[in-house]
Amino acid sequence: MSVWPITLGRVSETSRIDGRRLDQLRDVRIERGWLSQAEGSVLVSFGRTTVLCNASVTEGVPRWRKGSGLGWVTAEYEMLPRATNERSGRESRKGKVGGRTHEISRLVGRSLRAVVDDKALGENTIILDCDVLQADGGTRTASITGAYVALVDAVDWLRKRGGLVGEPITGSVQAISVGVVGGIPMLDLAYEEDSRADTDMNVVMSGNGDFVEIQGTAEGTPFNRDLLNELLDLAAGGCATLKQAQSEALGVRL
Amino acid sequence: MSVWPITLGRVSETSRIDGRRLDQLRDVRIERGWLSQAEGSVLVSFGRTTVLCNASVTEGVPRWRKGSGLGWVTAEYEMLPRATNERSGRESRKGKVGGRTHEISRLVGRSLRAVVDDKALGENTIILDCDVLQADGGTRTASITGAYVALVDAVDWLRKRGGLVGEPITGSVQAISVGVVGGIPMLDLAYEEDSRADTDMNVVMSGNGDFVEIQGTAEGTPFNRDLLNELLDLAAGGCATLKQAQSEALGVRL
Amino acid sequence: MSVWPITLGRVSETSRIDGRRLDQLRDVRIERGWLSQAEGSVLVSFGRTTVLCNASVTEGVPRWRKGSGLGWVTAEYEMLPRATNERSGRESRKGKVGGRTHEISRLVGRSLRAVVDDKALGENTIILDCDVLQADGGTRTASITGAYVALVDAVDWLRKRGGLVGEPITGSVQAISVGVVGGIPMLDLAYEEDSRADTDMNVVMSGNGDFVEIQGTAEGTPFNRDLLNELLDLAAGGCATLKQAQSEALGVRL
Amino acid sequence: MSVWPITLGRVSETSRIDGRRLDQLRDVRIERGWLSQAEGSVLVSFGRTTVLCNASVTEGVPRWRKGSGLGWVTAEYEMLPRATNERSGRESRKGKVGGRTHEISRLVGRSLRAVVDDKALGENTIILDCDVLQADGGTRTASITGAYVALVDAVDWLRKRGGLVGEPITGSVQAISVGVVGGIPMLDLAYEEDSRADTDMNVVMSGNGDFVEIQGTAEGTPFNRDLLNELLDLAAGGCATLKQAQSEALGVRL
Amino acid sequence: MSVWPITLGRVSETSRIDGRRLDQLRDVRIERGWLSQAEGSVLVSFGRTTVLCNASVTEGVPRWRKGSGLGWVTAEYEMLPRATNERSGRESRKGKVGGRTHEISRLVGRSLRAVVDDKALGENTIILDCDVLQADGGTRTASITGAYVALVDAVDWLRKRGGLVGEPITGSVQAISVGVVGGIPMLDLAYEEDSRADTDMNVVMSGNGDFVEIQGTAEGTPFNRDLLNELLDLAAGGCATLKQAQSEALGVRL
Amino acid sequence: MSVWPITLGRVSETSRIDGRRLDQLRDVRIERGWLSQAEGSVLVSFGRTTVLCNASVTEGVPRWRKGSGLGWVTAEYEMLPRATNERSGRESRKGKVGGRTHEISRLVGRSLRAVVDDKALGENTIILDCDVLQADGGTRTASITGAYVALVDAVDWLRKRGGLVGEPITGSVQAISVGVVGGIPMLDLAYEEDSRADTDMNVVMSGNGDFVEIQGTAEGTPFNRDLLNELLDLAAGGCATLKQAQSEALGVRL
Repeated sequence: MSVWPITLGRVSETSRIDGRRLDQLRDVRIERGWLSQAEGSVLVSFGRTTVLCNASVTEGVPRWRKGSGLGWVTAEYEMLPRATNERSGRESRKGKVGGRTHEISRLVGRSLRAVVDDKALGENTIILDCDVLQADGGTRTASITGAYVALVDAVDWLRKRGGLVGEPITGSVQAISVGVVGGIPMLDLAYEEDSRADTDMNVVMSGNGDFVEIQGTAEGTPFNRDLLNELLDLAAGGCATLKQAQSEALGVRL
Repeated sequence: MSVWPITLGRVSETSRIDGRRLDQLRDVRIERGWLSQAEGSVLVSFGRTTVLCNASVTEGVPRWRKGSGLGWVTAEYEMLPRATNERSGRESRKGKVGGRTHEISRLVGRSLRAVVDDKALGENTIILDCDVLQADGGTRTASITGAYVALVDAVDWLRKRGGLVGEPITGSVQAISVGVVGGIPMLDLAYEEDSRADTDMNVVMSGNGDFVEIQGTAEGTPFNRDLLNELLDLAAGGCATLKQAQSEALGVRL
Repeated sequence: MSVWPITLGRVSETSRIDGRRLDQLRDVRIERGWLSQAEGSVLVSFGRTTVLCNASVTEGVPRWRKGSGLGWVTAEYEMLPRATNERSGRESRKGKVGGRTHEISRLVGRSLRAVVDDKALGENTIILDCDVLQADGGTRTASITGAYVALVDAVDWLRKRGGLVGEPITGSVQAISVGVVGGIPMLDLAYEEDSRADTDMNVVMSGNGDFVEIQGTAEGTPFNRDLLNELLDLAAGGCATLKQAQSEALGVRL
Repeated sequence: MSVWPITLGRVSETSRIDGRRLDQLRDVRIERGWLSQAEGSVLVSFGRTTVLCNASVTEGVPRWRKGSGLGWVTAEYEMLPRATNERSGRESRKGKVGGRTHEISRLVGRSLRAVVDDKALGENTIILDCDVLQADGGTRTASITGAYVALVDAVDWLRKRGGLVGEPITGSVQAISVGVVGGIPMLDLAYEEDSRADTDMNVVMSGNGDFVEIQGTAEGTPFNRDLLNELLDLAAGGCATLKQAQSEALGVRL
Repeated sequence: MSVWPITLGRVSETSRIDGRRLDQLRDVRIERGWLSQAEGSVLVSFGRTTVLCNASVTEGVPRWRKGSGLGWVTAEYEMLPRATNERSGRESRKGKVGGRTHEISRLVGRSLRAVVDDKALGENTIILDCDVLQADGGTRTASITGAYVALVDAVDWLRKRGGLVGEPITGSVQAISVGVVGGIPMLDLAYEEDSRADTDMNVVMSGNGDFVEIQGTAEGTPFNRDLLNELLDLAAGGCATLKQAQSEALGVRL
Repeated sequence: MSVWPITLGRVSETSRIDGRRLDQLRDVRIERGWLSQAEGSVLVSFGRTTVLCNASVTEGVPRWRKGSGLGWVTAEYEMLPRATNERSGRESRKGKVGGRTHEISRLVGRSLRAVVDDKALGENTIILDCDVLQADGGTRTASITGAYVALVDAVDWLRKRGGLVGEPITGSVQAISVGVVGGIPMLDLAYEEDSRADTDMNVVMSGNGDFVEIQGTAEGTPFNRDLLNELLDLAAGGCATLKQAQSEALGVRL
């Protein structure tokens, strides 16, 4: 029931809902060690979207992987009930996890596994919990970007304990949304923009600029190859900036 | 426990697991009116992959849509327990629907809605049930391709009953998988190929060659823009062939 | 919402809803090897009622049976959402299996176990999945009759693999419904008849004409011993015909 | 872990496990008004088997029956965790109702509806809760026999409140088990006998000696028509005695 | 829908709803050996509140306790659907256990563990099932008081089987409710009083008069220290009487 | 798997695990407006224990309260999976809410309702979501203390919207834990102390020093009246300090 800017004129090239340029990210903040108990704990925000990414290390792997010598990285994503502008019921109370929650959990896990060498990890499991404290569009991309940093911290923790076989982190990973709103391609959609987008695309990239995952959906009119290329260019720019933010947070050059 | 071809040499350009060319679909069959009670009933197969797509029409729409004058199209996907080579437990017995099931159900629904004019449909609901009788890779793409035909039949049924406001079908939709196996891009992966793919991509296209949905995942090494373009070209070719198969099944030129 | 023959005059001895005689089965079809992956795969139909019966063999038995030297045969029955004339929701989505589904699954399993020697089976498990693709009355009797054929194929598969201790199949089993509609006893009720029946009985018989299971219910007036005997006579005739159909499908004389 | 008579010689015609004759019921007790809050509350016991049958009256009927002018009678059966000789887990904790529980609940409801005139009941609902406090075989037959008495009390309660349209009770209903143990047909099986039975049959009869429901299962060898007739004769005798016990409890001649 | 005394004047010091003194318990009955199969079986009643407390002994302990040499005592509380004045749905049908049920189960378990020496019990588990047959206030306190007696019987059973390491029962435990109704503190509230109470407190005491658990809630106005002390005095008196009732039931002096 | 101070000598009067005095709270922080979308959003911490308390206002009340003119205040408590030192599974994935979660949710709701005038609130609902981000003992007391501040903000929000009938906040509420560790009573137990406590008590008080709720449990030896009084004195002191912290956060004198 909060007051929220609802009316919105035509998006002009120079004025988005919050004054950003079309190829501009929202303010990105990545705070490491936000909580003290988890092996990696990162609070990441893309504008008002705020996600707590905790990495938990446990010795051993799920049963189906035992004896393989390989580690396992997975993720669970969930939104707090009042992350959204209107409260929604808890999935724990409903007794079932919704399709969207499952879908994003799987996406985050896959994205991180793309930059992990399971062999070097040894038979250890790292679970990335991405709990959305506040949602204003882009929760899955913020989750991936933040979870990567928490993962690096968790691997460091394991390394110090002598729990590694080699170097499990093979690169970095970033994610950003792009979309077409009112006919105009733009980067890092806030909720208000996202809900009005014709095309909505989430792009997960590796630090060297290749694609880890592309999920593009035409909500309205199908899109053609040219538009796809424009969107991918925007995403590549955004991911490069996110890589820089991760580097600064970690104090290393990724 | 069936005997299944397991050992597989390097995929050469001319010899895939089943002797197909890299840009060749498996045999596609689309049988309309397969069952007699549903408003649309299509048995679709891509090689050994077999999906029963039933369309059910009900008057009225879900509560959140009442009074809008708009119709609603949605889908539910599920696999029979012995669709796969090894039996897997029923989701009804487990008491919960898995993430993969949810994810594909949502994809099929979105893909069909991309070619439906909700206004012309009036306040009617069409549910597409896609039940996989046998799975050998590409169940989601076969589901979309077959469900489209069942949808057309259901809309015809509604039209004859005078239940439509206008023409709800705004175009056609097809879907196919592409992937990179052993470094080589190829079309319409069978299970054996899919399980060994570095990159796996499902592409949903409209009849005029635009994209409705792209979902590409690097299972191994991230992929670059050139490879993406190669894969999209393969997909475009496959979807064109599928459109022809749909046309023949429906006896109209889509 | 399909158009369906709803108005129905008084059933005369010579004219049933579909012109059958009172002691006549609907067309029975039993197709073996309908799918290629399961160890036994039978598509059975009694008129419009169509059930896919897949047999899955797995080595080993449930925990409570381990080390006993005995095998285990069980069944799971379920209806596709649009098997019925009006679509009904999926049990997987509801998160629970309904009482009717449980009841029939247990009946099918018990009926098959009546003709299996657990000792000769060795510690192997055979699961019969009976998925109703289309329902027009008699789904449980079609399931038992078809599942028996799939079971025989699965046992053959095991025999060829050398997985048997002896001959597990000790006889054959058939099932048919009988009922009293408008005061008149008749065989193999279609849905329309079944829904108007005073008494409804499912009879499972062994190939030598004995009873494996009798489940008779007075929906309206209780029935007496004479009527019971008439119904059992009808059922015995029907099961004899079904045994013949199974024999033909299997190419052996049961 | 209780001590229980486990070793058991061959059943001779004159000596059953508890010294009963083959056609003899266990001690039957039917206590009305056992609890003070329910509209009908009966504690019924067949030997050690003890079931609490409570009838609850509510105005109105389930949604699907509203406006029909017809009442509704239904039943829910459940076992307390330590009703059995070894404790079994609660279905509420498992989060799902088992197949057997569903099956028996449905049987009890159907049996009672066979002697109820829905029209005379008016739009009222009567729920019969049959909770097994102790189980020693025959819990479903005790439930039906006792629930009938609770139903009569609940209908009386409604009658006094002026809530009836006519006389809803059209007759009486009784139920008993029969079976073949060691080749010998016998009446009212205790758990120990039931677990060793070749054939197990539950018979529900109306007060005038007709059949409401017959559920017979060959656990071992299939049974023939002669044996069936013997079992039905035994059951008829048992039900006649139960009718007398109900009459005494109710202080009327049924 | 039972008729129930609903109108109630101001509670005067000498006249409670049922004529009791403010410091007077309802009639307490404790029947041992109520059922014959459980290792301890007690029917306890506080006035109309009736609870069946069954103790089940099993060898071994839950996994997390294995190898510790310690035993485990736990409890499960549940209400029959028609225990209450109006029927409420079964938790098994709802598919989830309610918060109140969990809360009381945990309270009963904790209370009993307070007087059990886990070491002396050896690696055995005792589960106390408290099933409320009729509820008229005080079901949790009756459960604790009755379950203690069933526990003593179960321990005796174990002792006779030679299954104990030492003497596990270190004392006795009783529980009673107290509350403030219409400004007046009183003992052992019946449902009618409880529903009108400003403050409601459940007190669990050990046989020597110390506190095992205090749970006090101000439903209306918060209460002060003086009132707390008055309530605790009332509870102490009630528990002393309950201890006497337990002693008589067990035929020992606790 | 974090490193955690595990070894702990005897607690002396002057040195607790973290150097606090026996009657000293941990650092208390209460940040209002922590998130921007909820009507009240408070991040509260008691030492390392950190809880996000969001208040959501919705017009209307649950069905059972409609038309009463009364408002409704309720709470839901949950822990993030990695709030604890070792990760625990999500209740949403398990498909059921645990007993402890239910119990604390109910406690928080009751405690807040004790200081709310439902009539003045009008038919509005306020839900307090207390999500534990990090747990180090005292999560329920921190939740109550923080949720009160979020509630005040939500009521202010409603007041500004003109949604109130009168002044719903009738006082303030605070909560703190006390316990006996190694025989010594102390205030505000951290997890390490709590897990070793003989007696553990949570005390909820109103701003004027009366009791809203007392929940005391003897984990080991039962406790007597003197010890109870000592603990209540400690709690009263702690709550007074918490009231001051709430006052400062709200900028009013409670």
